[in-house]
Amino acid sequence: MLYCVHMDVRVPPDTDPALFDRLKTEEKAQSQALQRSGKWRHLWRVAGRYANISVFDVASHDELHAILSGLPLFPFMDITVTPLSQHPSAIHQE
Amino acid sequence: MLYCVHMDVRVPPDTDPALFDRLKTEEKAQSQALQRSGKWRHLWRVAGRYANISVFDVASHDELHAILSGLPLFPFMDITVTPLSQHPSAIHQE
Amino acid sequence: MLYCVHMDVRVPPDTDPALFDRLKTEEKAQSQALQRSGKWRHLWRVAGRYANISVFDVASHDELHAILSGLPLFPFMDITVTPLSQHPSAIHQE
Amino acid sequence: MLYCVHMDVRVPPDTDPALFDRLKTEEKAQSQALQRSGKWRHLWRVAGRYANISVFDVASHDELHAILSGLPLFPFMDITVTPLSQHPSAIHQE
Amino acid sequence: MLYCVHMDVRVPPDTDPALFDRLKTEEKAQSQALQRSGKWRHLWRVAGRYANISVFDVASHDELHAILSGLPLFPFMDITVTPLSQHPSAIHQE
Amino acid sequence: MLYCVHMDVRVPPDTDPALFDRLKTEEKAQSQALQRSGKWRHLWRVAGRYANISVFDVASHDELHAILSGLPLFPFMDITVTPLSQHPSAIHQE
Amino acid sequence: MLYCVHMDVRVPPDTDPALFDRLKTEEKAQSQALQRSGKWRHLWRVAGRYANISVFDVASHDELHAILSGLPLFPFMDITVTPLSQHPSAIHQE
Amino acid sequence: MLYCVHMDVRVPPDTDPALFDRLKTEEKAQSQALQRSGKWRHLWRVAGRYANISVFDVASHDELHAILSGLPLFPFMDITVTPLSQHPSAIHQE
Amino acid sequence: MLYCVHMDVRVPPDTDPALFDRLKTEEKAQSQALQRSGKWRHLWRVAGRYANISVFDVASHDELHAILSGLPLFPFMDITVTPLSQHPSAIHQE
Amino acid sequence: MLYCVHMDVRVPPDTDPALFDRLKTEEKAQSQALQRSGKWRHLWRVAGRYANISVFDVASHDELHAILSGLPLFPFMDITVTPLSQHPSAIHQE
Repeated sequence: MLYCVHMDVRVPPDTDPALFDRLKTEEKAQSQALQRSGKWRHLWRVAGRYANISVFDVASHDELHAILSGLPLFPFMDITVTPLSQHPSAIHQE
Repeated sequence: MLYCVHMDVRVPPDTDPALFDRLKTEEKAQSQALQRSGKWRHLWRVAGRYANISVFDVASHDELHAILSGLPLFPFMDITVTPLSQHPSAIHQE
Repeated sequence: MLYCVHMDVRVPPDTDPALFDRLKTEEKAQSQALQRSGKWRHLWRVAGRYANISVFDVASHDELHAILSGLPLFPFMDITVTPLSQHPSAIHQE
Repeated sequence: MLYCVHMDVRVPPDTDPALFDRLKTEEKAQSQALQRSGKWRHLWRVAGRYANISVFDVASHDELHAILSGLPLFPFMDITVTPLSQHPSAIHQE
Repeated sequence: MLYCVHMDVRVPPDTDPALFDRLKTEEKAQSQALQRSGKWRHLWRVAGRYANISVFDVASHDELHAILSGLPLFPFMDITVTPLSQHPSAIHQE
Repeated sequence: MLYCVHMDVRVPPDTDPALFDRLKTEEKAQSQALQRSGKWRHLWRVAGRYANISVFDVASHDELHAILSGLPLFPFMDITVTPLSQHPSAIHQE
Repeated sequence: MLYCVHMDVRVPPDTDPALFDRLKTEEKAQSQALQRSGKWRHLWRVAGRYANISVFDVASHDELHAILSGLPLFPFMDITVTPLSQHPSAIHQE
Repeated sequence: MLYCVHMDVRVPPDTDPALFDRLKTEEKAQSQALQRSGKWRHLWRVAGRYANISVFDVASHDELHAILSGLPLFPFMDITVTPLSQHPSAIHQE
Repeated sequence: MLYCVHMDVRVPPDTDPALFDRLKTEEKAQSQALQRSGKWRHLWRVAGRYANISVFDVASHDELHAILSGLPLFPFMDITVTPLSQHPSAIHQE
Repeated sequence: MLYCVHMDVRVPPDTDPALFDRLKTEEKAQSQALQRSGKWRHLWRVAGRYANISVFDVASHDELHAILSGLPLFPFMDITVTPLSQHPSAIHQE
């Protein structure tokens, strides 16, 4: 099942850069593993913002929550989830 | 270049159903032609709403505007456009 | 899978009362059939508003969308969908 | 009487993790006691967010406020309360 | 139990004045009967707006909803309900 | 003259508890003196929030501002003021 | 006592122009009489909008409401009222 | 002096197309005359919306208001005006 | 030219009181000098809030920005600027 | 391709002034280099706010994001991006 997920990253200016860099490295590894598994199907940067628009393909709300709340940058993110269904005019079954 | 486009369709309850059905049929044809051309790359229904989240792949802002403003249901839509760029953690180049 | 659905009904004051009464009767029948099937698990009135907060238990986003968009009052509703997952402190598995 | 309560937990990134873990443990114990008593009737996680949607069944606004303001995580929560009444189409009396 | 209720009246400019005057007369009668019964405890006009802030004292959410949804001007109102509890610094028990 | 005042108290989680307790004690004393004087006519807790809805009866905007800005918790409050006038359907002159 | 009043005029495009012109003429006369009386102390156009920002000097909330709700264009206006008090740095007593 | 002006055009779906086409033709002529005069310095379409972002260079707020309120489509527009001043890092004096 | 300026002062509770008092003293002096010069024409306190509504009369957007950004409390302020033009019903030319 | 970019700078009052001054100097240099290259085509100060409205002319969303996220003050900015297309009434091709 597909979910559109919008993640806005908000980093207080006084965050320790070394800590944050470490979290970003871990975030990238985790994100790429999820992309390779097919669960994190699309990942786009919102131009001009520290934010992304993603599409996840997972089996349940529980799996989605486990993935998102397990992201290293989760404490810095404001996340919006939109469940997607098949559009009657879509020519592909995604 | 990619754009995330959110279209919310707002139909006043007193709209003539025959007219609206005709517009929907034209919309579907136009949407499917654009999908086949590769320009309307993704089209998802927002579950529970008369709305969609789409991704377009076009050459310029002008082309995007020409496509969206030419949709038969454009006068009924509230549209938001978000330019997407390559995410540094994405494993695919979309 | 569970979804919290908030439905706000907006009826233009000039709506034909006879038509609207017929739609409400159909809505009630459809809602009660869905409640009996176990898919529309909870249905509460928001006190003081023509609105409800509901919980649906369906197999997929597609099924949810089919149900909601098929409601007779759908054209008059503003709907918000929130996917619910298991809470780690919940003592029941809902 | 029933209340829908939406709790959004906002933890400043520089919160002491040990303190917060202790508060979470206390919160869980208190929440489960209230669930067992029947007063905290439903508790769902909002998928993708550090938030929950709950339904409380208590005797009065005063009792609801005493419960919510007594939660260990109350200082970190943004809470919205919606009083629920019996829906004329509901087949169960909740 | 007390509820603060904010009612905003929105009258489309093309509403039939005779019909609306009749509804206003009925609304006034109903409101005054409820005030005399003690259920509609306070009724204030929001200065400069076609709106009021009221306090109701009723036995349950169901009773509140029955009263508000039965008001002749209910179809023209946007209503917000806030449950009120005893304030620890209040010197009167209201 | 009457004013509806909505006060939302926002306490950063790292506020010194001893300091804040002292401010709350002073706030309570000041609030109760104003209630006894008849100027702070109603004081209700918003159920589930660290917030109150109040009605003040004072001689002027200046007096209202002096009272509110002199509250010990004023620096922690987000305040909204709504001037109230006599409602044509009110049976009491408040 | 002073009030800052923001009036936004919203005219549905299908409003009868002759009727509206008559209302505007009456509005102007009424506004100018109130300005001459000193009660409508300032009247400015918000550049680029069919809106004004005004300052009223009246004896009470009731008088303000009587004036505003008696304006011929009141049914077309969205009005916000802000009570103004003496600023400690102001060199004039307004 | 420069002003950034954002114009959002909102056309009710039941607007008479012939009338609206005439207004659009007049709007275009008026806009182009103002561009040639140097007063309407920039005019861009917001991609995907019936909206524009413009920059005006006029002598006063009064002149700006006269221009905007004189546009044939003014009754259909929601307009926001932002006064622009010289930026200390700008290399050109605009 | 006239501008309506709304200034909302937001002081983090942990601001050093001595520093802030010094800034307020400087702000007052600067504000009063500007009032005496005729540029800061009106200054009103928003009753119940640490905020003011002001009217400035200056020669250009640049002058307005220089004044506002030079205020000692500018870093603590959220400022909104509204350009004002002559209202056709105003009996005075302000 | 053109983008309207709105940048709002938010500096926590406790930011180290020396660090921030250094960032501002770097920001100015970088901004002026981009202006000279023709990519940062317009840069205006929003009067009364620590904010700017800019127009960028770059080859792609990726280039825009690289520029904006590389600005020294990026961590302090809230940025909104609006893609601009050719307006049918514009007399210049920008």
